[in-house]
Formats: sequence, C-alpha cells, structure tokens
Amino acid sequence: MKFLTPGPTQLHPAAKKSIELALADNIGSISHRSEQAYELYDRAEAGVRVVLAVPDDWQLFFLSSATECMERLVQNCVQKSSCHFVNGAFSERFKKIADQLGKKTHTHQVALGKGFDVRDTNIPTNCELISIAMNETSTGVWTDAETIKEIRKNAPDALIVIDVVSALPYAAIPWNDVDAVFFSVQKGFGMPAGLGVLMVNERCVHTAKTLEANNVSTGSYHSFASLQKYAEKHSTPETPNMLGLYTLGNVCDALNRQGLKRLRSETIDKAKCVYDWLETSDVYSPFVTDTSHRSPTVITVTAPDPKKAIEACKQHDIILGSGYGDLKSTTFRIANFPMHTLDDMNRVVDILQTL
Amino acid sequence: MKFLTPGPTQLHPAAKKSIELALADNIGSISHRSEQAYELYDRAEAGVRVVLAVPDDWQLFFLSSATECMERLVQNCVQKSSCHFVNGAFSERFKKIADQLGKKTHTHQVALGKGFDVRDTNIPTNCELISIAMNETSTGVWTDAETIKEIRKNAPDALIVIDVVSALPYAAIPWNDVDAVFFSVQKGFGMPAGLGVLMVNERCVHTAKTLEANNVSTGSYHSFASLQKYAEKHSTPETPNMLGLYTLGNVCDALNRQGLKRLRSETIDKAKCVYDWLETSDVYSPFVTDTSHRSPTVITVTAPDPKKAIEACKQHDIILGSGYGDLKSTTFRIANFPMHTLDDMNRVVDILQTL
Repeated sequence: MKFLTPGPTQLHPAAKKSIELALADNIGSISHRSEQAYELYDRAEAGVRVVLAVPDDWQLFFLSSATECMERLVQNCVQKSSCHFVNGAFSERFKKIADQLGKKTHTHQVALGKGFDVRDTNIPTNCELISIAMNETSTGVWTDAETIKEIRKNAPDALIVIDVVSALPYAAIPWNDVDAVFFSVQKGFGMPAGLGVLMVNERCVHTAKTLEANNVSTGSYHSFASLQKYAEKHSTPETPNMLGLYTLGNVCDALNRQGLKRLRSETIDKAKCVYDWLETSDVYSPFVTDTSHRSPTVITVTAPDPKKAIEACKQHDIILGSGYGDLKSTTFRIANFPMHTLDDMNRVVDILQTL
Repeated sequence: MKFLTPGPTQLHPAAKKSIELALADNIGSISHRSEQAYELYDRAEAGVRVVLAVPDDWQLFFLSSATECMERLVQNCVQKSSCHFVNGAFSERFKKIADQLGKKTHTHQVALGKGFDVRDTNIPTNCELISIAMNETSTGVWTDAETIKEIRKNAPDALIVIDVVSALPYAAIPWNDVDAVFFSVQKGFGMPAGLGVLMVNERCVHTAKTLEANNVSTGSYHSFASLQKYAEKHSTPETPNMLGLYTLGNVCDALNRQGLKRLRSETIDKAKCVYDWLETSDVYSPFVTDTSHRSPTVITVTAPDPKKAIEACKQHDIILGSGYGDLKSTTFRIANFPMHTLDDMNRVVDILQTL
C-alpha cells in the first residue's frame, strides 16, 4: 500500500525504522528529564534547523499539532486584531482560532483554487499579526516567497506568520520576510501525527513579553515564556511525545543525507510529470488554473468522478487523497512528498489515463 | 532493561505489540477523517470506559497531555476563582496554570509527604473548581475516595477535578463525588507519552456553555464545545496522535482481559512486598509515614544515598525513579504499575538489602 494522501501520508522509511529502533532502545520509557532525552531533543532541533536553514537567532518550540501552533501564536502575539489571508479550510482555521480567542479579525479571502494578488490588498494598519498558508492543503494553492515579500512591504509593522504544514520540506522559507513559521510532522516529514513545530523570531518573543507586561493572558504551560524557559533546558514543559521527537531527528538526518537540492529538483520533476499529463488529458484537469499558484507538493485534480479515480488507484494499492470538504465531489488530491517517487506518479497517471 | 520509573515507564507488552502492528497496518498513514480512524477512536474510548467504569453520561475527550487537561479545565470551568489541594509538584502545577490564566487561586497546602485532613479545611464558597491529585506522583501521597467525598460535602457547589495520572488503572474512581477526571498514558497504561484523556460530566459541559454565553474565552480548537462537536463525529478537532489512540485501545483490551479485580489485588500484593520490607529495613524507610496516605502505585523511599541505590539496580538492568525536585538527594521512587511484577519488586528488595 502506498499513501499519496496529503497527510497523514506514507511514512518516511526513516520514520518507520526510527519507531522500530525506539521500541528496541526503550525511547518510550526514558525520563523526559534525563540527559538522554535532552540529547534527543537537541538532535531533533538541530535536524530541523539544518533541513529548513533556520536562522540561529530564531527560537524553536515543540507543540502537539499545527492547530496548536495557531492558537499559541494568537495568544502570544495578538492583543486586539489580526489579519488572515484565506483561500481554503486551513488558512480559514487560523482566522477562526483568532475569532474564538476574542480577537478582531480582518480577512482577505479569495475563491477556492485562487491565489492572492497582493498589489491591490489593503491591510489595516492596526493588524498585529498576518497569517498566510504557503501551501493551502485543502486546495493545493501555493503562495510564493515573492507574494509574502509584497505583504511584508505593505505591512512592515505586523508580525507575519506562515503555515508551511504541507509545503515542507520542499519550500525554501523566506526567513527575512516572516516572523513565525510552523508545521506538523505528518505531511512532508512522513511521520505519524502528534507533533507540531513552531519557530519564532525575536519580534514574536518580544511581543509576547509586552503582552504579559500588559496583563494580557498568553496561555499557561505553552506560553512563549514557559516554552522558552524549558527549551533552554533542552526540554518541554509537559512530558513530550518523545517517540515523535526521536523520529523527527532521524527523519531530518535522512532528509539531510538525501540533500535538499536533490529533494527539491525531484519534487519539481514529480510535479511536472503529473501537471504535464493533466494539461493534455481530456478527462482530468488541474484544479488550480493559474500556473504560478499551483502547488508542487499537493496536486489537486478536477475529475468528473473523483471516487472512480480513487477506487481505481486503490485497486493497485495506491491511496489518493479525496477532495477537501465541498470539493470532494469534484476533485481528488495527489501528495508529492519525499516518500513519493516518480514511479508512483507514473503509476497514477497510467492507471487514470486507462480508466 | 526494566523501567520501574513513575512515568514515562516500562511499556506495557500490549503497547509495544500495538506499535509494531500499527507500522505493519499503516495506522500512521490513514486519514483521521476516515471510517477506519473513527473506529479506532471509538475503540480507544470504549476501552477506557470499560477499564475505568466511566458513567455513560460523562464525555471523554482526547488531548495531548495531562498538563493540557489542566489548562482546558481551567479555561472551560473557571470564570474567577479556583481552589487547589497542593502536596507536591503536580498538584501545584494545576494551581500555577490557574494563576497563569489569571484566575484567583486559593491553596490548601501540606508538607511534602503529608496527606490532607479535610475535617478542618475551609473552602471559600466562591471557588468554582477544586483540584486534587489522587496520587501525587512527586511524593507518592495518596488521597483516597473518602477524603474526596469529604471535600465534596464541604463544597457541594464547586466542580471537583481529580488528577489520576499515576493512580490508574489501579484506582477506583469515585465518579459520584467528582466532576472531571484526567490522566496521561505514559504512567499506569504503559504507553509512550503524547496523549491525555479528559473525562467530564454534564456540570462541566454546562459550566463551559455558561462561560461562553457570558463572553468568557474557553479557548479555541480545544474548548469543550469544539471537542464535543468533534467527539460526536468520533474524531478530534486537529489531526490526533493516531498511533496513541490505536495503542490505547489495545492496552485497554489487554487490561480488561487481565481483569481489574486481579490487577488491583496484584498491585496491593506488590506494594505490600516493598512497604513490608521498608518497615523492617535499617537503611531505607517509606517517605510517607502515615500508612493511610501511602500510594500503592508510586512508592517513595527515603534513603541515605539514593544515587547508590539507583546505580545498584541499574547494574541489574532495573531503572528506579529518582526523587522529584528537592527530594532527589533523600529519596528514590519505585513505580508499581501493571507492567511491573512481584518478581521485579522482589529483585529490587534483594538488590537493595545486600547493598
């Protein structure tokens, strides 16, 4: 069985091996306040820093999910109002979380499948935080570094947060134009779910401190202050998902051995294989019509009968992703992560074009 | 290697087997919005309900840690003030979280190693929530069902929450005298960390709704309202730790096969083995002097040189728990969970008495 789903997805071979090793080496039993645990924590952090080229002065925090990252960002970086670029279910989730936490939210919304043209975007000057999904997982719309740079120019005072959940490890993060970056591990890192990674720069940490000084609640055990205090001790405030931390370190090692340059060129080749075919197909077409907004990592396909396509691939032990929400009846999705090969993509094309 | 640590601890054989099965069966890859995932969720919930004899009208929520359970309880059940019975680091953590969330906290504190005499306890009438650790993991002090019943009598209007993190699965929960119960899985359930289980009755759910109606923030994706909405769909708001849910179902099945009656009598026998020896030892003694407050599940031992005892056991591939915090230099801890056998306890006694 091969999972070409946008996440949870096929486990990275290094993740599978890591979990087997963890069982043999008692990683699930060791104390989280032990030297061995601190070393695992450091290894996971160092691995992420190398894969993503995280600037040295950024902080890295381990949380339980990308959704939690959204909540902690709003709690620690927004006193009154935030602004959200919404083009699908996951970018909308960030806005909803800010709403639920009582913030005044401003939304830039475009239709599903569309990208943002930020030249005509008016961002209110009082917005403290702006959220953008670099890859909107529900639709496969990509927001590139140039667009993010434009948003930064339009709103230099706001903290800019990018959701890179399904963009990694392919995406090169525009560190200079953003202030916070987060992802979960069950997408491009090919791990079981249960771990979120949040990276923030000094501006975010300073904002959290200012909010606290103004008696605004920044949460409790997972406030930035608490996370930072424990991170300095190579640990987390609560007993963490140690199997996840251990496995993240091992997956990062594998990705670094493969090399990001090769990983990126392979991702482009695999995406091209599918998109080129879609352009010539009479039956299927890319859901995202504007080529500049098409995701290399989550390919959303418009199909007359998505269920039929999914079933046909399943007969060949390939699991495609269904369309998200309302798009279920008109689309399916093909993930293009490091665990997925050009051979997988060719097999999908072969199966679908003979349907 | 055998971990007799109070958690993370020795994995339950069913947990280890479950993780191996999960890898073979692609549990880390399946969609969390699929029939298969809903069935795993239901199985984990049903398993917990049988092991703990959870009343049918209680809600069960899956979170990421026991610490998160504390935060969500304060957010959803306290508008202004809470009351905390504090006799160690973990009961104190609950109070700190309420402090951090801006609540007015009232504390009943006794010295480390001591239990509560609630006859002379005065609980302020405006306390909305009272927290008690049934087993204070840091010291091995037990608070029994009778004491909890007394607290309920003293404060019938407050919601009573019990932390049963290291008391389970041994403890019989006094469901009629409490309103919320929570635990994490890396103690008596013998699982890797990364999953918390919160159970609440209708009073808690009603309180959360009232707070929301009064425009008090109850959190976002993990507010009781959001958790309940997804629980009705056999799911969680975020992508959950699916390996954890799957394994919890399997461990509960194993515990139910063993039978709670047998498990409880074995726990008592194992505890008796250690405590009886401590009573006669010239070198070691029980840290908790009052027998009625001694924990059956976490045995804290006062020793002249705890490090020497821990090292001696390590030479025999047995890992004891160190003392917690300031108690490190004077105590060590022996966990007594379902994975630990009478033979393990006898071995520890043999090693230590010949030191």
